[in-house]
Amino acid sequence: MDSCVIPLRHGGLSLVQTTDFFYPLVDDPYMQGKIACANVLSDLYAMGVKTCDNMLMLLGVSNEMSDKERDTVVPFIINGFKDLAEEAGTMVQGGQTVLNPWLTIGGVATTVCPPNEFIEPGNAVVGDVLVLTKPLGTQVAVNAHQWLDEPERWNRIRLVVSEEDVERAYQEAMFLMSRLNRTAAKLMHKYNAHGATDITGFGLLGHAKNLVQHQKNEVSFTIHNLPVIAKMAAVAKACGNMFQLLQGYSAETSGGLLICLPREQAASFCKDIEGEDKLQSWIIGIVEKGNRKARIIDKPRVIEVTPKIA
Amino acid sequence: MDSCVIPLRHGGLSLVQTTDFFYPLVDDPYMQGKIACANVLSDLYAMGVKTCDNMLMLLGVSNEMSDKERDTVVPFIINGFKDLAEEAGTMVQGGQTVLNPWLTIGGVATTVCPPNEFIEPGNAVVGDVLVLTKPLGTQVAVNAHQWLDEPERWNRIRLVVSEEDVERAYQEAMFLMSRLNRTAAKLMHKYNAHGATDITGFGLLGHAKNLVQHQKNEVSFTIHNLPVIAKMAAVAKACGNMFQLLQGYSAETSGGLLICLPREQAASFCKDIEGEDKLQSWIIGIVEKGNRKARIIDKPRVIEVTPKIA
Repeated sequence: MDSCVIPLRHGGLSLVQTTDFFYPLVDDPYMQGKIACANVLSDLYAMGVKTCDNMLMLLGVSNEMSDKERDTVVPFIINGFKDLAEEAGTMVQGGQTVLNPWLTIGGVATTVCPPNEFIEPGNAVVGDVLVLTKPLGTQVAVNAHQWLDEPERWNRIRLVVSEEDVERAYQEAMFLMSRLNRTAAKLMHKYNAHGATDITGFGLLGHAKNLVQHQKNEVSFTIHNLPVIAKMAAVAKACGNMFQLLQGYSAETSGGLLICLPREQAASFCKDIEGEDKLQSWIIGIVEKGNRKARIIDKPRVIEVTPKIA
Repeated sequence: MDSCVIPLRHGGLSLVQTTDFFYPLVDDPYMQGKIACANVLSDLYAMGVKTCDNMLMLLGVSNEMSDKERDTVVPFIINGFKDLAEEAGTMVQGGQTVLNPWLTIGGVATTVCPPNEFIEPGNAVVGDVLVLTKPLGTQVAVNAHQWLDEPERWNRIRLVVSEEDVERAYQEAMFLMSRLNRTAAKLMHKYNAHGATDITGFGLLGHAKNLVQHQKNEVSFTIHNLPVIAKMAAVAKACGNMFQLLQGYSAETSGGLLICLPREQAASFCKDIEGEDKLQSWIIGIVEKGNRKARIIDKPRVIEVTPKIA
């Protein structure tokens, strides 16, 4: 699943560890550093681990950058990564930097903990509900924002969104991608979560399918609601089959957690997250009896999520 | 130093962790996988850690390879990496693969252990000797081997080596780079080592300088002997200042450990390694009173190391 769990030789402890690296997708290097850090940590949070003991940073500096570009951009990336690690209550101690044609940024997150500090992802039961902690549409927003400078592509979507809509969606996407899923990890314990995963490159349904295949019980996931960054569902529709957002396959970066929670506790879970993080979560589906399939219903309700940040 | 050491929240344990990745340097993908694995683990062994609890593999697959090249080469790299991890008594559980212009291969090695399982590198005392567990010259051998196909460069060295010499040195370099420094790590405990580092990109003297700067006592390192893969000293000399091998700065990949050992125990240490691994080690220098400098004497003794393997 999202992190590997290795039983250790000492004290009944386990090593929970994950790595991720990718290429920049936003044009603000400081935010890019934060997003990379949030993305790495998210794999731990999906296991209900709220304390990361160490991070390593993995950096590939592009050999096609000028000295000036490099000296300007790279410190911002590093500082963004480190600042978010600090916000997560951990540190970056160690890592590696190499020259590479493409700029790359990623890391490793490691925790050593007793079994009660992590939550196995495979214990969903019939009657659970599925909660999602961030809206979908980050990739759509990032791409639409790039198209502001590409008239041919912009023409495909200009009938459904304004430049202001796209700018706002892009800012919201950056904000969301750089948010930690840490509060959700903590509350998974309080509200007896039965398993979770984080939504990234395979999209909501891709990761839901992966999670349901790891269930011990004979269950299926049915998704009814799709919270989406405002206007991005319209953009995705205007682009035909390009994103597959409403089909559940649009890639997300540093997306939300998809969590199986007892039905009677889910509303309190969402309320607590909103109280602590000022961020909405949504009950998007249910766990039913079945043969480990996940699906989105034919006409899901699309929830337009309007940015709350200034 | 070579690995980060993080005190943990549980049981007086520490997290010892390192990462490394680089680009291929030999043309045998299986050996390249082994070399990458040995290189990552070497940072743990330099801390006297002989048990690795988990490895992650970091792979960048070149987008310039054809499907056929990729499907042929990548499994060999992965298997080489995994096989050597198994030889080291550990496993590869987790990792990340991305597409990248350049092929990259590396990993993360992690151990959780009590303080008596690792050896702080900074406790050398006057009277210690310096032991090196692999000969120098891997980069010279790899480059000379490439020059077999580049007549202009080959002409610079053909007066001092034969094609057979170069082929033999290259095979020996591959063998050495893929050897684990694990026996040395184990014997560092038995023979009361006062600190160590592994020799990689900065060369013998570069890493010796780094190690001496981390010493608690006011000591200096003086190096008298340079064990070098047979004929590679002559090749380096014929290339002028290109490699800086005899000056101590020729890069090594997955080189030996440089270990500070009590003088009276060093010979037994070398004998034990040879007994277990069939690999020679050398006493190459001494620890003297000083202000944390490392140097190679004016006319060091170059020890021609003839391959023992068939």
